[in-house]
Amino acid sequence: QQRVCPLPPAPGATILTLSLCLCLCRAEDSAMENIVTEKKAEESHRQDSADLLVFILLLTLTILTIWLFKHRRCRFLHETGLAMIYGLLVGVVLRYAIHVPSDMNNVTLSCNVNASPATLLVNVSGKFYEYTLKGEISGSEINDIQDNEMLRKVTFDPEVFFNILLPPIIFHAGYSLKRRHFFRNLGSILAYAFVGTVVSCFIIGLFMYGCVLLMKQIGHLGGDFFFTDCLFFGAIVSATDPVTVLAIFNELQVDADLYALLFGESVLNDAVALVLSSSIVAYQPEGDNTHTFEAMAMLKSFGIFLGVFSGSFALGGATGVVTALISFNFTKLRELPLLETALFFLMSWSTFLLAEACGFTGVVAVLFCGMTQAHYTFNNLSPESQDRTKQLFELLNFLAENFIFSYMGLTLFTFHNHVFNPIFIVGAFLAVFLGRAANIYPLSFLLNLSRRNKITSNFQHMMMFAGLRGAMTFALSIRDTATYARQMMFSTTLLVVFFTVWICGGGTTQMLSCQKIRVGVDTDLENFVSIGPDGVERSSTKQESAWLFRIWYNFDHNYLKPILTHSGPPLTATLPACCGPLARCLTSPQAYENEGQLKDSDSDLILNDGDISLTYGDITVSTDATGAHTSGTPVGGVAVNSDEALDRELAFSDHELVIRGTRLVLPMDDSEHPLPLDSRLVS
Amino acid sequence: QQRVCPLPPAPGATILTLSLCLCLCRAEDSAMENIVTEKKAEESHRQDSADLLVFILLLTLTILTIWLFKHRRCRFLHETGLAMIYGLLVGVVLRYAIHVPSDMNNVTLSCNVNASPATLLVNVSGKFYEYTLKGEISGSEINDIQDNEMLRKVTFDPEVFFNILLPPIIFHAGYSLKRRHFFRNLGSILAYAFVGTVVSCFIIGLFMYGCVLLMKQIGHLGGDFFFTDCLFFGAIVSATDPVTVLAIFNELQVDADLYALLFGESVLNDAVALVLSSSIVAYQPEGDNTHTFEAMAMLKSFGIFLGVFSGSFALGGATGVVTALISFNFTKLRELPLLETALFFLMSWSTFLLAEACGFTGVVAVLFCGMTQAHYTFNNLSPESQDRTKQLFELLNFLAENFIFSYMGLTLFTFHNHVFNPIFIVGAFLAVFLGRAANIYPLSFLLNLSRRNKITSNFQHMMMFAGLRGAMTFALSIRDTATYARQMMFSTTLLVVFFTVWICGGGTTQMLSCQKIRVGVDTDLENFVSIGPDGVERSSTKQESAWLFRIWYNFDHNYLKPILTHSGPPLTATLPACCGPLARCLTSPQAYENEGQLKDSDSDLILNDGDISLTYGDITVSTDATGAHTSGTPVGGVAVNSDEALDRELAFSDHELVIRGTRLVLPMDDSEHPLPLDSRLVS
Repeated sequence: QQRVCPLPPAPGATILTLSLCLCLCRAEDSAMENIVTEKKAEESHRQDSADLLVFILLLTLTILTIWLFKHRRCRFLHETGLAMIYGLLVGVVLRYAIHVPSDMNNVTLSCNVNASPATLLVNVSGKFYEYTLKGEISGSEINDIQDNEMLRKVTFDPEVFFNILLPPIIFHAGYSLKRRHFFRNLGSILAYAFVGTVVSCFIIGLFMYGCVLLMKQIGHLGGDFFFTDCLFFGAIVSATDPVTVLAIFNELQVDADLYALLFGESVLNDAVALVLSSSIVAYQPEGDNTHTFEAMAMLKSFGIFLGVFSGSFALGGATGVVTALISFNFTKLRELPLLETALFFLMSWSTFLLAEACGFTGVVAVLFCGMTQAHYTFNNLSPESQDRTKQLFELLNFLAENFIFSYMGLTLFTFHNHVFNPIFIVGAFLAVFLGRAANIYPLSFLLNLSRRNKITSNFQHMMMFAGLRGAMTFALSIRDTATYARQMMFSTTLLVVFFTVWICGGGTTQMLSCQKIRVGVDTDLENFVSIGPDGVERSSTKQESAWLFRIWYNFDHNYLKPILTHSGPPLTATLPACCGPLARCLTSPQAYENEGQLKDSDSDLILNDGDISLTYGDITVSTDATGAHTSGTPVGGVAVNSDEALDRELAFSDHELVIRGTRLVLPMDDSEHPLPLDSRLVS
Repeated sequence: QQRVCPLPPAPGATILTLSLCLCLCRAEDSAMENIVTEKKAEESHRQDSADLLVFILLLTLTILTIWLFKHRRCRFLHETGLAMIYGLLVGVVLRYAIHVPSDMNNVTLSCNVNASPATLLVNVSGKFYEYTLKGEISGSEINDIQDNEMLRKVTFDPEVFFNILLPPIIFHAGYSLKRRHFFRNLGSILAYAFVGTVVSCFIIGLFMYGCVLLMKQIGHLGGDFFFTDCLFFGAIVSATDPVTVLAIFNELQVDADLYALLFGESVLNDAVALVLSSSIVAYQPEGDNTHTFEAMAMLKSFGIFLGVFSGSFALGGATGVVTALISFNFTKLRELPLLETALFFLMSWSTFLLAEACGFTGVVAVLFCGMTQAHYTFNNLSPESQDRTKQLFELLNFLAENFIFSYMGLTLFTFHNHVFNPIFIVGAFLAVFLGRAANIYPLSFLLNLSRRNKITSNFQHMMMFAGLRGAMTFALSIRDTATYARQMMFSTTLLVVFFTVWICGGGTTQMLSCQKIRVGVDTDLENFVSIGPDGVERSSTKQESAWLFRIWYNFDHNYLKPILTHSGPPLTATLPACCGPLARCLTSPQAYENEGQLKDSDSDLILNDGDISLTYGDITVSTDATGAHTSGTPVGGVAVNSDEALDRELAFSDHELVIRGTRLVLPMDDSEHPLPLDSRLVS
């Protein structure tokens, strides 16, 4: 049936124009031509709208129920868990209750070609139609496609998750990071995120490889499952997402250090797991399909990991810095919050696109961009824009997150190639548990050797318990479900996510009380009380988390802050004398004004803590950063929520830097609330 | 070359599985198989990211330049005009300066099939790839596709405009409508929008048909161009978009009635033109391609127009009302502005999807949804959510609008099937001018017969001049560029948009001063001065714009407002006694509280105008609506901008209704600012 046609000379000699001569089947021309009308496209558009509408209504329902839950103060089920349940219900309905009779629209042509170009032109009785490549389909799916058009309709392209839904979630995580406590625990967080995730990935991978070998022995394995697949599984289930737990932490005001450890770890975690998984996919020994170990390939993978991670990190940081510079130089932009917000949004988005276009990982770049924006650009924004950007990304994060979780529930029933293997599933749950344990306990032990402010064992248990799997794990596992191994991973991952979100997420309050972790802690007061009273304790605390932080802080405060924001000391004061002209040209007039203030505050500063706090308290009232805070306070007298706490954090911590000037290098341990302090001393 | 293959029996007898047996060309298997790797998809994704990045950077550049313009108070070029210029520049660069060598990735297969199903399966040496239908391509484009892969890359699917970019723009227009002045001029606005647009459409259509006949005579026409095409052209260029003009009006504080007329007309205009154009497309006489006139087909088109318009209207209104009811009943939702905002956003989006899924026009539905949301839901939202929703849609509107305009500039060079016909272009400019004149002048004359507050001739000239064409016209014309006629329309439309935005938009200030239209008018004061002092003038003003408005206002105020919002009198007071139980069950406790207040204010109300204003002024301080306003004030003491004006408008006009109670039915002519009034009387 194959015949080679003469090929017209390709224009430019590079374009391959394959003119396929087809044998045609079914000569029912008139019937076919009716199908080919615009009606079909319209019909398909209507169907798409209806499908999307289902999701929107699902989210609406979730919101209304969440409201009910918050109203009743139910903490056993988080909104994401709820979204999953609704998704599950809709999935059941779609799968079992609705039978859409397949009609003429579901025509599928099967061409036997030996290439799959990105664009395909189909000549239908003289008219040309353009087709675009959607992706490969496994042989077993072909019948499904025809049978389950409706279920396939509610299936999104997995890349939607990576390119549309994940970026706002990750950016929000970076943008809302409580930087003060994050930097205090920087060393530990980096250890958990990098070393811990890699350890967890390998432990899970090895354990699963054992399971797979067992399954092969007893003949429970229906397809190939290589060691790299196991490692890949290890990487994707190592990305923790304690959004549920942190929501409760926030509400109950759990210890800020525990919060920072968990949040910081999970944020960086996602980035590490993402890059790790793509490095594992890139691991391919020379001999190709042999799937044996090879040092060169391993090194290559490691190189890719480092390259992609540092590239994304640099890119994200760079765009953040560029945005900060723009907002720094275009100060009059502050009068037009709409333009400012739009600029902020566009620059943050362009980070993602730039990273993707360069071949780095957009999601990772966006994370670091978010952190840079929060650290520098945020200070240059007008108070109104500060509110606007926070609210915008909060909303996007909320919508994207709930969408992912409800979609997750949906896919349990609508995805058609589930491979539920009991041994693999049991093995996976054990492996996830072991991997988390191998991450937390040994690392905590090692970290405690150098930490003064120990990570106590109940904190360790809590961190162990809070290792939920969420959006990133799901997105990674749904990205490729072509092979048997990947399908089994996907099904298992879904169960892991369900279990951890419902059980671990739901049991957080119980776990907190069981571990006797104090709740209702006022972060700032706590801070003061534990460290303030005696100077010895203070200086030793400095030593503790300091060396990594101190280097960074000095550099950041003396050079980056003055260049990128209007706060901080003027560069002329921090740069060596030889750089004078450069410094003068980079320093904004505002910085000199700051300096005058600083000098005064600094002299006060030497006297005693109480005075500093008061001076500090006075100054805060008169500045922008605090202005933002004042105007951002909810009008109705609503209780202090996480957002506001962040707000205050940002306002104050930023401010602290302004006041402390060039002389103080260790800002992490003093009180932020002067008045509570005074009243304490008096009483 | 065509051979009919035996067809396997279709499963379920409805699915047509066409198994195509293909003759294969080019047996370079290994080379081809490399193409088929995931690399290609990745490459394509990177390219897409880079393309989108170009647009994002374009928008960023636009924002920075706008800032410069605003800073220097340049009014001769609006941001949209600027976006177009940047788009043009990038278009030139893409077209002439960059030559991307086409590579192996650009392979195009041409299958000769007799059907174009939505999904196509291609079998590449055992692997199946899925393709989806993108659309039809005219024969002339086929070579272009291979030559201009790069230019095609920066071309968006026209449906993107209708489904992603237009909805936020139109919703924002509805949501930010100055309702008070809009309702005052409701009759005139409806006349301009409905009668005027239809008149303009037919005038332009007839004139262009003359041009086309002329071109046919002298042989300047390269393809078919039917009367329906001319009418279609008339419909798409009848959609006015005076965003540029209104921005300047806002800045200069031009007369509120002129603003309301122009804004109201252009908002409804878009909806009318959209539905009109789709009705014209649906016009098909029985004899099919004869393109003769047929009464039945005409009636059908008219029916479609009415059906689609009223359906979309009803749907938009309905979802708005549902949202209002939800926010009315879930009052505790106010404590969680994030949930409230998300709910608002999702409900508004679902309006669009619902309308599209039902076969109505989503954009029109969204417009009316926006208006309903502003009228009812807005009052139920917490002050913070009021700010958030306004800011969110303001941002989306800004981004979408500038994106469309920069894309417009881009397409002038990157679109590959431009048909610039000098006669058609000159004819079109004349026709657009004539059509606008035939809309404004005769209608204004007729309206002035019944209006007390005449539309003066300089207002008429201004309205004539302000008939810019913008986003909707562009989106309509790019939606279908398959035929010769449509291509010529698209090219001409682009020029019309460029001309009107740059010349008419840029000349607005000149035109205003030339027409001696007063600027810097304080809307509210103006209002009072012109009507306040003598009762006679007042009552006559009532007569003027009243009858349509009065009916609506009574119904709205007595029944809708109490059911849908917490303001307005309790239903028990407005419904007849027989409906007592129903009324009691629908009235919220807050309404009764309102009533108590109302009674008091009402008794004051009878005395004199000054007193009302003062009482009114006192009350405003203590209510939510004004609370929103207070908290929404920009912190930096920025000058009153349009947003704030709207804010105040909403806050006050809403409030007015609360105070006026059940007895006053004509709220449109009294002062809103008590203090300026007093100081006036004293001085």
